[in-house]
Amino acid sequence: MNFEQLQKQVDFIHEIDKLKYIQRKTRLFNSNRTENDAEHSWHLALMAVVLAGHSNEAIDLLKVIKMLLIHDIVEIDAGDVFLYDTVLNHTNTAAELAAAERIFGLLPQHQAQELILIWEEFEAGETDEAKFARAMDRFEPLLQNQSNKGGTWAEFNVPYDKVVEKKSVIKNGSAILWDYAKKLIDSSVEEGILKK
Amino acid sequence: MNFEQLQKQVDFIHEIDKLKYIQRKTRLFNSNRTENDAEHSWHLALMAVVLAGHSNEAIDLLKVIKMLLIHDIVEIDAGDVFLYDTVLNHTNTAAELAAAERIFGLLPQHQAQELILIWEEFEAGETDEAKFARAMDRFEPLLQNQSNKGGTWAEFNVPYDKVVEKKSVIKNGSAILWDYAKKLIDSSVEEGILKK
Ligand SMILES: [Ca+2]
Repeated sequence: MNFEQLQKQVDFIHEIDKLKYIQRKTRLFNSNRTENDAEHSWHLALMAVVLAGHSNEAIDLLKVIKMLLIHDIVEIDAGDVFLYDTVLNHTNTAAELAAAERIFGLLPQHQAQELILIWEEFEAGETDEAKFARAMDRFEPLLQNQSNKGGTWAEFNVPYDKVVEKKSVIKNGSAILWDYAKKLIDSSVEEGILKK
Repeated sequence: MNFEQLQKQVDFIHEIDKLKYIQRKTRLFNSNRTENDAEHSWHLALMAVVLAGHSNEAIDLLKVIKMLLIHDIVEIDAGDVFLYDTVLNHTNTAAELAAAERIFGLLPQHQAQELILIWEEFEAGETDEAKFARAMDRFEPLLQNQSNKGGTWAEFNVPYDKVVEKKSVIKNGSAILWDYAKKLIDSSVEEGILKK
């Protein structure tokens, strides 16, 4: 029995365990404990299962889930960039591309290529699948912040307009989800947990 | 806009956040830090993406991933049962069924039914998808224990025969994965991290 392909896959499975150590700024629901990227990726994947019916367009759910399971893996090397960071820009950086090539590159070549392409598709945000996946990525921390008396909005003094600007990409994936999200943002102002 | 269905889905998304607090006995790779169920579920889902080609039978990968994303959710209410527990038996207990009905029951009815059926299918372990999903669930902690000088095998004095018995269900999902796993178990004896 030739284990060559399987050993490469096991090496990848071992390596991505490190995602469990990458801490996000956002905290769990009603909690002070920060979320790590592996938990976050699990949550988004299951959100996609449950919310897929609200997508603006028919989507390939399996592809969306693959995107969400791998979307943050580059952060093992490149680190988490906070959505509201005012210095670092979360665009497809050279460091992230190098990370994608190193980490997915542990896999057999055809799988490495497939996952790098899916990650790039997520980053570009242009296909229906990427738009819906990105909507999940913006929606979860919104729910978390709202459950945490403003969460990172309060902690980092993020104003209403900036939140609306960043979260409005939800609309590209799902109009109804954006309607819901916008109401949550507005009610957060009324509750005094987001400053207008 | 009627948010009734969406609000139920959001309530579910909020509730399952608790999976991030359910600690397993197994520890992360090369680590003392225990793994939680959300991280574990993420890892298994991505393992299924990468290892699907080794399944004994053609499988519906989307269904396998759904199984793995939800397979431990009942533990929010029922708690984690250690694979090698000698008192508690991890069969589909009444407590787990009640948990499934409560937690998936937060969703709109058609989704609750779908996910309860998928969870029951995983538990029964009879379909090709369930067999492969269960193989993932047994393979990850084997890799972790092997990376942790025996991990829970050493910590709880689990003997070789018991490990082989519990892990041999991997074979039902993937013969090649079981060949690989069996070699790892045998080499763990040679390394002195598992007692025969
Ligand atoms: Ca991120």
